[in-house]
Formats: sequence, C-alpha cells, structure tokens
Amino acid sequence: MPSISTKGLAMPESPIRKLVPFAENAKKRGIEVIHLNIGQPDIKTPKVALDAVKNNTLDVIAYSRTEGSETYREKIAAYYKKQNIEVTAQDIIVTTGGSEALAFVMGSIADAEDEIIIPEPFYANYNGFATAAGVNVVPVVSKIEDNFALPAIEEFEKLITPKTKAILICNPGNPTGYLYSKEEIKKLAAIVKKHNLFLIADEVYREFTYDGKEHYSILQEEGLDENAIIVDSVSKRYSMCGARIGCLVSKNKELVKTALKFAQARLSPPTYAQIASEAALETPQSYFTDVIEEYVERRNILIAELEKVEGVRVAKPQGAFYCIAELPIKDADHFAQWLLEDFNVNNETVMVAPAAGFYATKGLGKNQIRIAYVLDKERLKRAVQIIKEALTVYKG
Amino acid sequence: MPSISTKGLAMPESPIRKLVPFAENAKKRGIEVIHLNIGQPDIKTPKVALDAVKNNTLDVIAYSRTEGSETYREKIAAYYKKQNIEVTAQDIIVTTGGSEALAFVMGSIADAEDEIIIPEPFYANYNGFATAAGVNVVPVVSKIEDNFALPAIEEFEKLITPKTKAILICNPGNPTGYLYSKEEIKKLAAIVKKHNLFLIADEVYREFTYDGKEHYSILQEEGLDENAIIVDSVSKRYSMCGARIGCLVSKNKELVKTALKFAQARLSPPTYAQIASEAALETPQSYFTDVIEEYVERRNILIAELEKVEGVRVAKPQGAFYCIAELPIKDADHFAQWLLEDFNVNNETVMVAPAAGFYATKGLGKNQIRIAYVLDKERLKRAVQIIKEALTVYKG
Repeated sequence: MPSISTKGLAMPESPIRKLVPFAENAKKRGIEVIHLNIGQPDIKTPKVALDAVKNNTLDVIAYSRTEGSETYREKIAAYYKKQNIEVTAQDIIVTTGGSEALAFVMGSIADAEDEIIIPEPFYANYNGFATAAGVNVVPVVSKIEDNFALPAIEEFEKLITPKTKAILICNPGNPTGYLYSKEEIKKLAAIVKKHNLFLIADEVYREFTYDGKEHYSILQEEGLDENAIIVDSVSKRYSMCGARIGCLVSKNKELVKTALKFAQARLSPPTYAQIASEAALETPQSYFTDVIEEYVERRNILIAELEKVEGVRVAKPQGAFYCIAELPIKDADHFAQWLLEDFNVNNETVMVAPAAGFYATKGLGKNQIRIAYVLDKERLKRAVQIIKEALTVYKG
Repeated sequence: MPSISTKGLAMPESPIRKLVPFAENAKKRGIEVIHLNIGQPDIKTPKVALDAVKNNTLDVIAYSRTEGSETYREKIAAYYKKQNIEVTAQDIIVTTGGSEALAFVMGSIADAEDEIIIPEPFYANYNGFATAAGVNVVPVVSKIEDNFALPAIEEFEKLITPKTKAILICNPGNPTGYLYSKEEIKKLAAIVKKHNLFLIADEVYREFTYDGKEHYSILQEEGLDENAIIVDSVSKRYSMCGARIGCLVSKNKELVKTALKFAQARLSPPTYAQIASEAALETPQSYFTDVIEEYVERRNILIAELEKVEGVRVAKPQGAFYCIAELPIKDADHFAQWLLEDFNVNNETVMVAPAAGFYATKGLGKNQIRIAYVLDKERLKRAVQIIKEALTVYKG
C-alpha cells in the first residue's frame, strides 16, 4: 500500500474533533448539548452583505483577480484608513479566509525547520499551518495569573535563533481574549526590528474590544513597514465565517510579491463571498455598537458566574469572545468527555474546548478550558450552572 | 530587513502573468485583445445553480462542515455513481477548488524532496503546489507528434526512485486536450501497484470528451482502491470557476483521514459556493449536450483553421478545451509579447499562452503555444487569421 507522508502523520487533529462523537451520542440519548466550544457566532450577518449576494446579477461565476478585485481592495484600504492604518490596495491580497493568508505568509517567510515564536496558549490551527509548511512553532508561555499579557521580552530573546523568522500574535487573542497594549506592541516592534524578524498579527477580532480599550494595530506602529504583516478576515467581524474571505496586508513589497505567487497557484478567492464581503464594508456602525454591547453583557455574566464557582480561576478578556478558565480538576480532556458521556442536569450538558490543545508545551493548560461566549445570556448562565454542578460530582 | 524564504523565492510565477502588462498597454492604445490564453469559459453557469444562491435564506453565513455538508457529499457520490464510479460520501472531502484538493493530496503523501512524476506538458500550477509543498516534480515527456499520448511505461519506470510517491495525470488534459484511453489507465494502474505509488488524476474536464470517446476514470479501474486519488472541481463542469469548489476522492481511508487534518486547519469550504455547487448537480443533461456540441464545433474550426497555416503543427484534442500548437518560430514567449506590443490587424491582436511554462524540462515547448477555445467561433476564426498574418511578418 502506498504510504502517507511523515508530515501528514504529524498533522495535528483539531482538539475539539475527538469530542464530536461523544456530543453526537449525547444528542442521540436526548441530551441537549450547550456548545461553549465553538467560535461560530450566533450573531446575524449584516443584511447589506446577505442582500448583495441575493441580488447579484452574474450569469457566469468567473474567476476573480488572484489578489481580489481592484474595487474590493480599494474599499478594504479605505476601511483600514478609518482604523488609522495607512495602507493602499497594493498592500493587500484577498485570501480564502484568514487561514489562507496565514498559509501564504508561512510559505513566504519560512523554509522547512525554520521557527516562528508564538505566545501560548494560541489558536490551535496555527499548529496545522506550521506543520503543513514544515515550520517549527516555538512557544513562549503567557500565564492566566497575568491575564495572558505579553510575556517578558527577555523570554522572547532567549528563544531567538538563526532559524527564527517571525513572531506571531493574535490580537485580541483567541483563545485568551487578551488585548495587547500599545506598549506591548512597541516592545514587539523593537525586538523584531533588532533581530530582522517579521511580526505577524492575526487581527481578525480587531473590532471586538471592551471597557473603552482601543486596539493598536502593528501597522499603526511607525518604522515597522518592512516587518509587519497583518492576517485579517471578515469571518468574525461580520459574522460570516462561512464566506471564507480574509486578507493579508503588508507594506513589505517583497513579501506581498512572494505571497502573490502562492495566491496565483490557487487562482482566485471565492467570487460570491467577495460580493458579500465587499458589501459588508457598508455595514452601519450601529451594527457593531449593538454586537459589542451584546458581547460585553455576555462576558460580564460569564465571568461573574464563573467567579462564583469554587476553585475556578478566570482571566478577564478585554477583546474577542473567548476566555480561558482554570478548573479544580486534573485533566480537562477527560472532564470534557465525561460531561458529554456521563453527566447532565435536566437533560442538558455542555461541550467545552479543553485548553491543552492551545498550548505547544506538553503538560500546560491541562486544567484549563476555553469558553466561547457566542451564546445568548440565559444559555450562558445555564451552562456555567451545569459546570458548577458537574464539578461537585466529578471524581476525575 | 527580514528575509523571504528560499521556497518563496522559488515559487514559479504564472507563465501568463508577465504578459498581462503588455495586454493592458495594448488595450490602452485602443487595440482589442482576443484572449486565447485563459481557461475561463464564456459558457453561462447553469441557472439552477445561480438561482439557488439568489434564493438562499441564510441569515448567518456560518462555517460548514470541514469535509463539506453531508447532503452535498451524498449527492456528489450519486453523481459519481452515474459516471460508473462507485464511491460513498465518506470517500469525499469537499475542497476550495480542485487547487486545494491537490494541495491537500501533496501534503498528505509527500515530504520535502519527495518526487511526483508528471507527464509534461502539464498544468503550470502543479509546479506552484509542488514548490509550496517542497515536492520535486519529475517530468516525463509526451510529444506533439504522438498527440500527447501516454509516454511509454518504460519511461516512467526509469524515473522511479525511493523518493517517488505518485504519478499525477490530468485527464482529459490541460494543456494538451489529450484523453487517456482505458488501456493507458490500465498501464498506469499496473505500474503504481507494482511500485506502491499513488495515482492522482485531475479529472476536472471529465465531461468534456469528443468524437464519441468515453472518459475512463482511475476509480473505475478495479483493484486500484488504495492507490487512486481523484482531484475534481465544479469550475469547468458548470462554468463556475469563481465558486472555488472542488473535491478530493479516494477509497484509501488513511489518505482521506490525513487530508481531513489539512482540511480542518482551514476550517471549511465556502458556504455560498457549496449552495451553488449542490444545486448545480441538478443541471439538466441538455446543458452538457449543448455545451459539448459548442466545444466540438469550436475545436473543429480552430484545428481546421490552424492546419491551414503554413508551418503550424497542432495536436487534435479529444477532450477539455485546450490545444497545443507548434509554430514556425523559435521563442513563443517573445512572439506572444510581440503580438501584444507590435502587431495588430485592424486594431485587433491576440494573447496566447507560451507553452514553455507547461514543461518542467528546460528548453521544451519553446516553439509551442496553448490555445483555450473558450471563445465564440467567429472570434476564434479571426484569432487564427491574426496569428497567420503575424507569422508572415514576425522576424523572431
């Protein structure tokens, strides 16, 4: 029989995927499963985006330009200008989700065995893209007791080798909800300039900042034009995860030129989704105001309820819509499976994402879970109540 | 300044891309450019697919399943059954175009420096995916005087090393239009089984076969279940290149399981495009009958007209909608640029794809061009007339 590649065998499985059969079994037994595990918002996609697709008049669904249509990229540049990020259409490549932008970036900057430093816990799929590109992820630990703030810059310095090509951050963070301050970004800017590294920022949650805090983009930082690469996406911003449109933004011409060659191989990003995404840029500000108000209320309820549970420690997120909670247990993988297999309260249980999958360092995060607060408040409250009752009977 | 990866520098540029500025300049000078260079059909997308998207009632554009929705995959399996290809939904992963299917396959079967044998000339983007995956393409020459038939199997044997992981064919072929016979597929089946290799077939042009010839899929071949992988796409079949939906099909469970991990990292294929693609499966047979009749007429005119031009040799395609023509010139790259820069007939000129970009062996195909017959008959005739007149004045 022909054999699978070493790389293919090494590709990580989604940390949540192995729980899916248990969730399906629970549903078959008549148990309602409250999903705290997924980042799929329940928020409606802006009507202007939905309508643009419904009213399209195309009669041939043709390839678009490899880098995305000129008009769409011009409008994206105008969107960034409003965020105080000065870029032009030439600095932008439209991609099939933020995922593809990250894959293009990794291919463009790193060869096999090269290294990218990432504060952990981090978005688990970074591991997948790194493995696919043959790149080694080098984690630097951020801690729940620091609210997952940027680790001391000396910790980064210690890890830099001749193989280090970039530092990658997610800001605000999935799975931490941490929003990096201007000062933290400046520290990162200094170290990447000192060592000639790229600074890649996954800024897909840019709009989701709370408590009056403002997002500071790496492309707002002066003097970082050659180093900064933004990975972006419409998925969370407009609750259109299924569109699969994102972009890569950089003022480094060589980087954009190289990424474009990766883009050419796959021809073009999806046409219908670009129609939706271009229209989504017309979304009224009131949409975001409402959405953010909703997320703040959800977060407040979630954190307040979790803090009432004995033995639970929770970081207070100031962005995105995730939080990491530490539970008085030894193995969240086992706990998550047990919740689905052996526990319910009035025929309801919860599905959580064990946090170990978000760490690259073995053994870290084993007593933590990630919660996505993309559910209505009543269900969130009920979910925490279920976790609370579960912890009183769970034997580990 | 941070540096670009060796892989990024090695990524090939699209062979047509460098001609684009010359075409744009010609248009600015008021010259009409007839595009023989692109595989974007002018055929309308089936109404049933367009309508499904226009009438969709989604209010959240959510992620779909990583492997594509269950209903869509069931319907794809039923489509294959009609083509005498016996597969189930479990053998199928829906991808973002055939492009992504090929990228997943390469990652799943080959590590850096592994080799894939491909008859040349071949679809130029195979080079891009191979470079991105760190895989070496090993070409085996097929010849215009043989109509680009399968090279002798001994030629493959000579090239097989311990690093060889697969043979990749495109059937019917882009850029050759060659349709492999059942006997040729059986020869390939025997050699991949003998050497424990995968046989990857890009069958995106399956429906486009002419002169009563029938397509024989690698998955119709008995005993090839562990070796055969089909890369497929809706792009050409339903003239919806911009949808970006394809799939990977294999009865090798390990292969599908591994490819699924690559798919998980990028979350899901595009939702709108899946709606269109699922509906497209309801396209009436009359659509294909009409389209194929149209392509046969176009091909007949194109070949007849080309054969009238002195010094031109052309392979007769029996599938897809491309043909390779050999011209009485030394350097088709130069000729193609000259056509755009320095030549016109009544303010019209043509843009062709120089064929060297479809060969991996340096020096081959330099006097050949690829023509896509995706234009109406009158324009095709005019295009050949322009090439004919151009050849009488071109000095090389």
